[in-house]
Amino acid sequence: LGEDWSQTPDQGALLGLSGTRLWVFAICRDPEGWRQLKNLVSRHPNLVIIALEATDPASIKAAAARVEEHLKGSGLNLLINNAAIGNNGTLESETPENMSLVYTTNVTGPLLVSQAFLPLLKKAAQGSNQKGLSCSKAAIVNMSSEGGSIQNVFIWHLGQAIAYRCSKAALNMLTKCQSLGYGGDGILSIAVHPGWVQTDMGSFTAPLTVDASVRGILNVLPTLSEKDNGAFMSWEGKVLPW
Amino acid sequence: LGEDWSQTPDQGALLGLSGTRLWVFAICRDPEGWRQLKNLVSRHPNLVIIALEATDPASIKAAAARVEEHLKGSGLNLLINNAAIGNNGTLESETPENMSLVYTTNVTGPLLVSQAFLPLLKKAAQGSNQKGLSCSKAAIVNMSSEGGSIQNVFIWHLGQAIAYRCSKAALNMLTKCQSLGYGGDGILSIAVHPGWVQTDMGSFTAPLTVDASVRGILNVLPTLSEKDNGAFMSWEGKVLPW
Ligand SMILES: NC(=O)c1ccc[n+]([C@@H]2O[C@H](COP(=O)([O-])OP(=O)(O)OC[C@H]3O[C@@H](n4cnc5c(N)ncnc54)[C@H](OP(=O)(O)O)[C@@H]3O)[C@@H](O)[C@H]2O)c1
Ligand SMILES: NC(=O)c1ccc[n+]([C@@H]2O[C@H](COP(=O)([O-])OP(=O)(O)OC[C@H]3O[C@@H](n4cnc5c(N)ncnc54)[C@H](OP(=O)(O)O)[C@@H]3O)[C@@H](O)[C@H]2O)c1
Repeated sequence: LGEDWSQTPDQGALLGLSGTRLWVFAICRDPEGWRQLKNLVSRHPNLVIIALEATDPASIKAAAARVEEHLKGSGLNLLINNAAIGNNGTLESETPENMSLVYTTNVTGPLLVSQAFLPLLKKAAQGSNQKGLSCSKAAIVNMSSEGGSIQNVFIWHLGQAIAYRCSKAALNMLTKCQSLGYGGDGILSIAVHPGWVQTDMGSFTAPLTVDASVRGILNVLPTLSEKDNGAFMSWEGKVLPW
Repeated sequence: LGEDWSQTPDQGALLGLSGTRLWVFAICRDPEGWRQLKNLVSRHPNLVIIALEATDPASIKAAAARVEEHLKGSGLNLLINNAAIGNNGTLESETPENMSLVYTTNVTGPLLVSQAFLPLLKKAAQGSNQKGLSCSKAAIVNMSSEGGSIQNVFIWHLGQAIAYRCSKAALNMLTKCQSLGYGGDGILSIAVHPGWVQTDMGSFTAPLTVDASVRGILNVLPTLSEKDNGAFMSWEGKVLPW
């Protein structure tokens, strides 16, 4: 969420419910995705589509430059690193190629995207008159997974997904590092498990609808403060074990 | 540790103190390392040097074939995945190239090495008359680091080491997955933090000598059993938080 005025957005703004000058940048790499998002843009003129391929550092930098241009000197309040891939490689079948691609997408991607958008996040934090940390001041939300919990090893019986689990544990570590490194700049960092959701990745057998997961997350984000910096939290606001 | 006789090695054997037909395979990629190890071989005829480059799948397979050949039908009791790299990349300076190389070495390496040596580990487990899991039956020891603890974030003030920390958190996840996947085959899996040690990586400022660290680990390994499968443990036998 980026704002082009100097006031801090309220919780409603976080939810995209108020503020005509609140911008939402939807990131997408694929022309088919662009077509779907264009329908949304016609109904929501504050939605801007930006191309970004998370495995391509040049594409990430170009996307950050486009967002900066669009914000005309304002900061960016909220960066959600959502893109990820995963498949069901087992201890036996997992390949070095898949280990690399999944890590590059799911961990190096969020690292580089955060690097590229950091100046805009810092600007939002500096322009805010809020004390402490919050998602309406400046925040990085990394979409993690309970599959990344080393303690719990979520739904192992349904799939080993070695590359994916390793990548999400590493993403949780990155989130913790970002919380330590960026907290002083006024930026909150958090890892969120969206639940097991009916998407291409989660499949139709998942218990949660996209709507329920997103509503859950949108309820949790505005409640986050200083004490949640660096946490690993579910769509219901439950703290998950590393 | 590989044995070419059908008895189970005792704790002494684990320590390399007894058993004339107990083989220790020292893995090494570098000709300079070979020279140093050759001095050891002249004093310890049960030590066999094997070339292995952990980022090269073909080299890993070739090494496993050489060890198998050498064991003449016997199994391998203990696989220690020790090789790793790390440097001090920060949230700002960490590059995609370094993220990839560190992950390939520190996580994909141990995954592929374990895949390649699995038949020999299974053979050792099958040939053992021990109940439960143990290092003298069959085990994978992954050299992790307290730097991979998401909960503790060990010595952050001395260096962010983003790629390294992320890789060790991922290695801890791999270890947990191996404990779930291989426990049924009679193979114990564990992640060990060797302490902060005076090596090239740890530097001379580290508090622990190599000797103290190795002695600690050699004291801990023989105590491990079923209940420790999948744990994250220090050289002193202390369980560390993920
Ligand atoms: N669904 C679940 O049950 C579940 C559970 C736990 C965590 N999560 C996490 O939630 C997040 C969203 O997952 P989802 O279920 O919506 O997955 P999904 O249905 O597979 O969608 C993933 C999205 O990420 C995009 N993407 C993948 N690689 C990319 C890249 N290199 N550059 C740019 N975009 C890329 C995909 O774009 P394309 O359409 O172009 O491929 C797609 O839009 C992920 O981080 C996932 O790990 C999901
Ligand atoms: N030292 C510490 O304080 C400390 C603390 C926590 C954890 N650890 C862990 O303990 C283990 C041993 O570390 P160390 O302190 O002995 O590190 P080190 O002094 O840097 O030695 C690392 C060894 O790994 C080898 N290696 C690296 N990449 C390799 C590859 N691709 N293929 C084959 N061999 C490779 C190196 O070979 P070359 O000599 O050919 O480069 C070297 O022999 C590592 O897993 C490390 O992460 C160390």
